[in-house]
Amino acid sequence: MQDRFLRACWRKPVDRTPAWYMRQAGRYLLEYRDARAERTVLEVAKTPKLAAEMARLPVEKLGVDAAIVFADIMIPIEAMGVSLEIREGIGPVIHKPIQETEDVARLRALDPERSLAFLTESIGLLRDSVDVPVIGFSGAPFTIASYLVEGGPSRDFAKTRALMFGKEKVWHRLMDVLSDMVATYTRFQVRAGAHAIQLFDSWVGAIAPDDYARYVAPYTRRAFAGTNGMGVPRIHFGTNTASLLEAMRAAGGEVIGIDWRIPIDEACRRLGDRVGVQGNLDPAALLAGKDVALARTGDVLARVGGRPGHIFNLGHGVLPGTAPETLAAVTEAVHAYPLPGGLA
Amino acid sequence: MQDRFLRACWRKPVDRTPAWYMRQAGRYLLEYRDARAERTVLEVAKTPKLAAEMARLPVEKLGVDAAIVFADIMIPIEAMGVSLEIREGIGPVIHKPIQETEDVARLRALDPERSLAFLTESIGLLRDSVDVPVIGFSGAPFTIASYLVEGGPSRDFAKTRALMFGKEKVWHRLMDVLSDMVATYTRFQVRAGAHAIQLFDSWVGAIAPDDYARYVAPYTRRAFAGTNGMGVPRIHFGTNTASLLEAMRAAGGEVIGIDWRIPIDEACRRLGDRVGVQGNLDPAALLAGKDVALARTGDVLARVGGRPGHIFNLGHGVLPGTAPETLAAVTEAVHAYPLPGGLA
Repeated sequence: MQDRFLRACWRKPVDRTPAWYMRQAGRYLLEYRDARAERTVLEVAKTPKLAAEMARLPVEKLGVDAAIVFADIMIPIEAMGVSLEIREGIGPVIHKPIQETEDVARLRALDPERSLAFLTESIGLLRDSVDVPVIGFSGAPFTIASYLVEGGPSRDFAKTRALMFGKEKVWHRLMDVLSDMVATYTRFQVRAGAHAIQLFDSWVGAIAPDDYARYVAPYTRRAFAGTNGMGVPRIHFGTNTASLLEAMRAAGGEVIGIDWRIPIDEACRRLGDRVGVQGNLDPAALLAGKDVALARTGDVLARVGGRPGHIFNLGHGVLPGTAPETLAAVTEAVHAYPLPGGLA
Repeated sequence: MQDRFLRACWRKPVDRTPAWYMRQAGRYLLEYRDARAERTVLEVAKTPKLAAEMARLPVEKLGVDAAIVFADIMIPIEAMGVSLEIREGIGPVIHKPIQETEDVARLRALDPERSLAFLTESIGLLRDSVDVPVIGFSGAPFTIASYLVEGGPSRDFAKTRALMFGKEKVWHRLMDVLSDMVATYTRFQVRAGAHAIQLFDSWVGAIAPDDYARYVAPYTRRAFAGTNGMGVPRIHFGTNTASLLEAMRAAGGEVIGIDWRIPIDEACRRLGDRVGVQGNLDPAALLAGKDVALARTGDVLARVGGRPGHIFNLGHGVLPGTAPETLAAVTEAVHAYPLPGGLA
């Protein structure tokens, strides 16, 4: 297996900077749009051959150094008995948002062997079809909780914070349940063959540092504990995290994923030498054409300056409308960037 | 006039910490909901007696130390000839978003004396009806541009950044026009009697520091220049600005407004002694009941510790569903907080 992604996760020397992209198997790919023409995203995820093929495609088309399991962060939530749908152009919609302890009590413990066997199969197929590591993933407890409380995507996450502050017992009970779920779910993916895990705490930037320490970090830590000692690196990703970087590092993960709002050299400096850093090209740069994308890619690489433990990625998911050729050119540029002691 | 708000803006000693709230004349007030029952927000804004009354109400009901003109950041945009509406529960919707130089060319220069005479009248009425300073306001060029480019509110502002990066000439032309407009519009409000100005760059936290420096700061500076030398303090507000604080200070304003994501003591330290700081109670704390709101208010005040130049406010607008009594209790607690040399 071509393992420069894993080596970088462990901050070992690599021949070239590894690259992969969040949502690299997404709407910007024609093949994905075809697969989705008559299927929901959850249907694709539950069809192992199709899911594995979607996850394999970007490895072939873009030359990326890791494949990510094709799934949705709502997959385990649905398996806990939550009625939901992924609405086109909107995102997850939870039919009965969580407000009270009884709502939390109705969440079933996740039994992935029973309810998510399709994932074992899709991870197995994916492993067999690519020569790069396979990344499993989950939403982090806060981000999942925000969907459950808001009832769907939000711009301000005010309901989530109001419940957190005003109904502390409900919040802590919900986070208890979700951190156990994430621990179970990620352990399950590693047993199924995932070589690494990413926790998406995509919306955690909505809260203040003190609230993070009190209402989030203990649960993120518990979620990470699920895969402690399994020998797989874990990536801890969030957006809008300029006030939270050090606290996120302390909460767990061998690699911290950042968005484009923090210059990556500053993130490297603040995070120090004991974790890797993933990021942080602005996904909007890819919509602005190849020249812009390449110039900005060069800037990210120069700022990192060959520091061990860099995984090149975007600051968030690939946007629909991105040209696959632009993303392939970016990958090529990342691989061509000369590293101290590297091949290029 | 009771002027502790203005004194704090200029970092002079005050008897009590001044407080006001963004969107203090909003949906959380019964009287506002009544006024809006059969009118759009733009209709209320264009009816001077009603607009002045809406702006006066929170001074009476909450005991705040400043009134803010009742208007909408889309008011001057509409007056530039842009077809738009404020859609209920969504926000501004621009019927023909800006994409090309021709779209920018169609924007008319703002002639506020001609098209916004109702504001002169409403500011005059408001001045006569309250004993506290009147704050005029405008969107900052970036935030207005984001609405014009996205066509409405956005979660990721990807179209805005893609245009900024990929069609630089269009972006710079648009920001030229908007910064002149904001300069004209705020100058007009000061001439009409506003004692202070707030620029809302609410969504500027969507971009990286380097992009802020290149694509935003020069225009924000030009917008502020419109009221240079007029003797009114200017507040420069944004959310998600943990990576941008120092750059925002450099771009202008006697006071920097922050959201709840940055601890206010850290913001004070980073901003230094030459600007005031406004903020930063999490508006969601007000939805969590009086005890939570008061405890968190105490925390904000303790962190500031009586530093000159603090204006108490929320980190963003008052949320619908907030109890006016909670907000009144918060105001009372702010006023009761003992200041070095103060009355309390």
